Amino acid sequence: MPEFCSVPIRLTPCSGDFARSLALRLVASGVQVVVGSHCVNRIPSGLFPDAVENQEWAVSQAVCLVFMALFPEHYCSLLGLQSALERKVLVDVSNAAEMNIHRLSNAEQLAELFPNCLVVKGFNTVSTWELQTGAHDGSRQVLICSNSTEGKKKVVQLARQMGFHPVDMGGLSAAREIEVAPLRLLPSWSGPVVVTFLLFLFFYGYGFLRGILLPFLAQGHNAFYRLALDLLNESLPVVALVILALVYFPGLFAAWLQLWSGTKKQLGLLRFLCAALHGVYSLCLPLRRITLRSIVNTAYKQVPVPFLWNELGVWRSELYLSCGVLGLGVLSLLAVTSLPSVGNTLNWREFMFVQTGLGYIALTLSIMHTFFFGWDFAFHIEAYPFYMPPSYLVAVVLPWIVLVCRCFLLHPCIFTRLTRIRRGWESKHNCPVLHHHHVVTNGIEVCE
Amino acid sequence: MPEFCSVPIRLTPCSGDFARSLALRLVASGVQVVVGSHCVNRIPSGLFPDAVENQEWAVSQAVCLVFMALFPEHYCSLLGLQSALERKVLVDVSNAAEMNIHRLSNAEQLAELFPNCLVVKGFNTVSTWELQTGAHDGSRQVLICSNSTEGKKKVVQLARQMGFHPVDMGGLSAAREIEVAPLRLLPSWSGPVVVTFLLFLFFYGYGFLRGILLPFLAQGHNAFYRLALDLLNESLPVVALVILALVYFPGLFAAWLQLWSGTKKQLGLLRFLCAALHGVYSLCLPLRRITLRSIVNTAYKQVPVPFLWNELGVWRSELYLSCGVLGLGVLSLLAVTSLPSVGNTLNWREFMFVQTGLGYIALTLSIMHTFFFGWDFAFHIEAYPFYMPPSYLVAVVLPWIVLVCRCFLLHPCIFTRLTRIRRGWESKHNCPVLHHHHVVTNGIEVCE
Amino acid sequence: MPEFCSVPIRLTPCSGDFARSLALRLVASGVQVVVGSHCVNRIPSGLFPDAVENQEWAVSQAVCLVFMALFPEHYCSLLGLQSALERKVLVDVSNAAEMNIHRLSNAEQLAELFPNCLVVKGFNTVSTWELQTGAHDGSRQVLICSNSTEGKKKVVQLARQMGFHPVDMGGLSAAREIEVAPLRLLPSWSGPVVVTFLLFLFFYGYGFLRGILLPFLAQGHNAFYRLALDLLNESLPVVALVILALVYFPGLFAAWLQLWSGTKKQLGLLRFLCAALHGVYSLCLPLRRITLRSIVNTAYKQVPVPFLWNELGVWRSELYLSCGVLGLGVLSLLAVTSLPSVGNTLNWREFMFVQTGLGYIALTLSIMHTFFFGWDFAFHIEAYPFYMPPSYLVAVVLPWIVLVCRCFLLHPCIFTRLTRIRRGWESKHNCPVLHHHHVVTNGIEVCE
Repeated sequence: MPEFCSVPIRLTPCSGDFARSLALRLVASGVQVVVGSHCVNRIPSGLFPDAVENQEWAVSQAVCLVFMALFPEHYCSLLGLQSALERKVLVDVSNAAEMNIHRLSNAEQLAELFPNCLVVKGFNTVSTWELQTGAHDGSRQVLICSNSTEGKKKVVQLARQMGFHPVDMGGLSAAREIEVAPLRLLPSWSGPVVVTFLLFLFFYGYGFLRGILLPFLAQGHNAFYRLALDLLNESLPVVALVILALVYFPGLFAAWLQLWSGTKKQLGLLRFLCAALHGVYSLCLPLRRITLRSIVNTAYKQVPVPFLWNELGVWRSELYLSCGVLGLGVLSLLAVTSLPSVGNTLNWREFMFVQTGLGYIALTLSIMHTFFFGWDFAFHIEAYPFYMPPSYLVAVVLPWIVLVCRCFLLHPCIFTRLTRIRRGWESKHNCPVLHHHHVVTNGIEVCE
Repeated sequence: MPEFCSVPIRLTPCSGDFARSLALRLVASGVQVVVGSHCVNRIPSGLFPDAVENQEWAVSQAVCLVFMALFPEHYCSLLGLQSALERKVLVDVSNAAEMNIHRLSNAEQLAELFPNCLVVKGFNTVSTWELQTGAHDGSRQVLICSNSTEGKKKVVQLARQMGFHPVDMGGLSAAREIEVAPLRLLPSWSGPVVVTFLLFLFFYGYGFLRGILLPFLAQGHNAFYRLALDLLNESLPVVALVILALVYFPGLFAAWLQLWSGTKKQLGLLRFLCAALHGVYSLCLPLRRITLRSIVNTAYKQVPVPFLWNELGVWRSELYLSCGVLGLGVLSLLAVTSLPSVGNTLNWREFMFVQTGLGYIALTLSIMHTFFFGWDFAFHIEAYPFYMPPSYLVAVVLPWIVLVCRCFLLHPCIFTRLTRIRRGWESKHNCPVLHHHHVVTNGIEVCE
Repeated sequence: MPEFCSVPIRLTPCSGDFARSLALRLVASGVQVVVGSHCVNRIPSGLFPDAVENQEWAVSQAVCLVFMALFPEHYCSLLGLQSALERKVLVDVSNAAEMNIHRLSNAEQLAELFPNCLVVKGFNTVSTWELQTGAHDGSRQVLICSNSTEGKKKVVQLARQMGFHPVDMGGLSAAREIEVAPLRLLPSWSGPVVVTFLLFLFFYGYGFLRGILLPFLAQGHNAFYRLALDLLNESLPVVALVILALVYFPGLFAAWLQLWSGTKKQLGLLRFLCAALHGVYSLCLPLRRITLRSIVNTAYKQVPVPFLWNELGVWRSELYLSCGVLGLGVLSLLAVTSLPSVGNTLNWREFMFVQTGLGYIALTLSIMHTFFFGWDFAFHIEAYPFYMPPSYLVAVVLPWIVLVCRCFLLHPCIFTRLTRIRRGWESKHNCPVLHHHHVVTNGIEVCE
């Protein structure tokens, strides 16, 4: 029962990996395949499931579907086959050569050359590897577009038969987007990575200036060894805290929609990475040679420290460690819900609950962690050498503003009014006030 | 080639986010859309892909499909359009207003009002955000139900064209369930979270009473600082251990089926969270001010401890740390296989192997961790102040029972008999004994 | 609108879990079901959605589809129903009894017995649990094969209606593979686990010999307590490092294709597990009794260590900790992209970028971690007791070779020539040189 007869043609003998994998997968899916090439003799026998034929013969055998596994610059070499290809479905599997060229897509060029064929764009987003691994792993999407409903339908069916998940992207004008897709390199990550990196650079530089370079210049105190671990461990949590605040900052003023569009998830993961690295670095502190040295040193000098029980100091140390660990725990929950497969199982309300609810808990715990860490030496004059406040004080300003604003906005009177504005309160005289479909109500409406 | 002509109507000007996103997504999927509203003039131009039309005109333009993006209480306002809507597919996209109302679903109400239309429930489980992000993320399910096979088929096709994964939920009586779906808030988590929280409260309270309050009342010994870190770190592993045992407890007596129905996965993740927090807390111990103080103190006092090489003590400390780390490692593997995307790649046998096999290994390692931790001071009289045993001894009872029962049940004679009972051994005279389809046989059948 | 009428027959009363779940799911999907059994009276009423009927009657009621939920050895008992079953679709849901039997599959046996029926294999890969949980979790694949296009089409439709993701596996000859699928037990993991285990055994044994057994035999020095933690912590990172190098080793010489076929992902996860355990173990070091003892001991002895500020030693300790933490961070990113749901969102170029780019960064950091750790005591004669070099020196050889080769191959002249060879440079006179579809170009082409 050969439902489709497909013919990848014009293979280069040396690089036809994609064509070969495609042919093998088609055969495995129960499709009868004829492979054609213009340089038949150069292809080692056994490479393809069946013998490779002359192009003309191969195309004439094709019942309805022809895969074009060749480069766009060679489309014209097929013009001689125009009559044989008539009314057949041509599937263009080529990628774009570059990212930002504003000219006709390959598939549209093909459609111009072969106006009597049903040109369909598709399968280029699938890799050779995915074609080979077969159906068991086949949740992979195949993006398809065409101006011909009939041709598209056939290719969609074929993709489904091959175990892929075909997605209709509309008319052939979407071909450019599909052709460019395999070239993109984590586009949604570049912004967040740059922001994180710049923040890190700023705080690392600030810490270097304040804690290492200026003291060295002023007092000749050599602490450059702190560059490798201490300063990293100081900068990482500060970056994590600022990103955490940045993510929730716009949400207070801008629309909920904007809040989610874009890079929230990526920032969330980078923030988690920073916080986790800070955690591991902190836990490494007792492993350091310098720590052992200072303990032994203290003991050796027989300082009368041990006789003083500093209740406040003990509480401070216990509380900042505890807040830090819990904050990291909450951030890790946020990171887990950012995984696609977990996020997909949540509905909108659950997603908002986790991201907003847990996000503010993490923010609060992080701020508490910072305050408990710095409470007793933040307000001494020694904490401000060269009139520069410590990094964590600089970093905690923005998170603190966000948290205070949030508490202020959650106050019942303001919250009610705000919700009402969002729901179109002022228009109630004309159009009846209707409940927003996907609003998240997590406050109490008290005041009238 | 406009295959569907869809018309979202009766938009509130201020809150029509959902309708707008739906219209945009439909246009992007190559569907011709006409938008209608009863208050045409109030909608800012440019908000929708096309101009918003009068309802009557919009409906008359619709070829076959009309999206009803309005609130159920306004369905009746459309009764005037009844003749224009005749024989068309009405897609009801509304959510339920509340969770637990036992009345007709919105879609069923609509079907009663428009008996000549093919009413289909669907798309309400999709969020505005998902409508906007488009096909690339489109593994999202769209739940659909209808009494009309024809209408359902059209909506299923449309959903697939839009890049979603339509799921047929059967007749219109399933509409209530679909309408309530966006309102649910992690229903499968409430039980496990409550259980975990209560267990935590109990052990935290017990530890507070035994280690802090009673000693304070009896001897005036102030150790309240232990509330912040020590006691948390004592209670967390105990909770993790009890949950681990609880999950495997019913499996010994109840059917395998019940074992899996429900909250095993959630309990597993909470257990991992507790264990991981315990791990991080424990690793924080050397960072604490009080630890440094006590080391320096010991060295300062020049206690003759260093000259004694306590071989047993060294082994104990090495073994309990090692068991703890390995146990946490195994628990983290269990947590990873709980992720939907990982679990989906496993077949039933593999899933059982991982969850049952690794589960019992984790249980064994945790119990060993506890025993090695407490072996030399569990049986002194000082471990029982106020006649209260330490938390870890209380906690280890249940896991120990589960482990002993398991070993007992795995004994070949019992295992064989049990398997035979499960397979319907007693009925062998009438119906032939058949092998269970999905049974997991991991024992040796020796005795007859 | 009962589109299908399906009849699971010949249920064993006691173990018909699968048949019951299937029947319930069919009913929930809006299919009218008649259940038949040859021992009608033994089935408790209420177990099935409808009363269980006599087989003959049930089959006669079936409009077109009959599910065969019975064991292959009882197929022949249905031969009496041959005329009633004629032209109907028989769905064989049985599993293979054993893994490696080379005989006809169950479905093919069924097809031989009932030549007038359309035999379809399917649904056996779905577990009872997945049948019960329903549509919300239904991204699960249902593998289907048949020689009858008509029968396959019906079953595919039915599977989709039930919320599953049907995958067409071709003709009935694929039935053996489908029947064996539920029996496989992590086949792609056995190789990597064995490799990891053997490597671990080797390095653990080597360390035991070099550090514990030989010193004990030669000098009577008892250090067996190191078996529990120290030696584990020594062997784990060494195993992780060797695996990391092994994964990238073949990539330098063999084709890119082979590099990905197989067990790279599994090795990556095991490597991460080893590295993470090493991290946790190392962080545990300050918790050990023996560490405290040695600190106190040092302080007690009043060794004049504290007065020496070993600048080099401090840098070494800071750098090796920092490289280790960063290396572990990069490895954790690699592990996250190995999750199916994350990997599926990446295109080929992104996947290669992450796996190759981050992989080599992790390798470099790990090697630096090792060198900083050992730089000052690797080249003393004391590091070679019994002429055995320390484990980490043995382990670092292979990674070092891989890294040097990589740097060498990335040198522009070689890289350009290599790329050209891969693209079929030598054949440019006959066939035009075409750009490889999925090649990853991350070097600079400078030399001609």
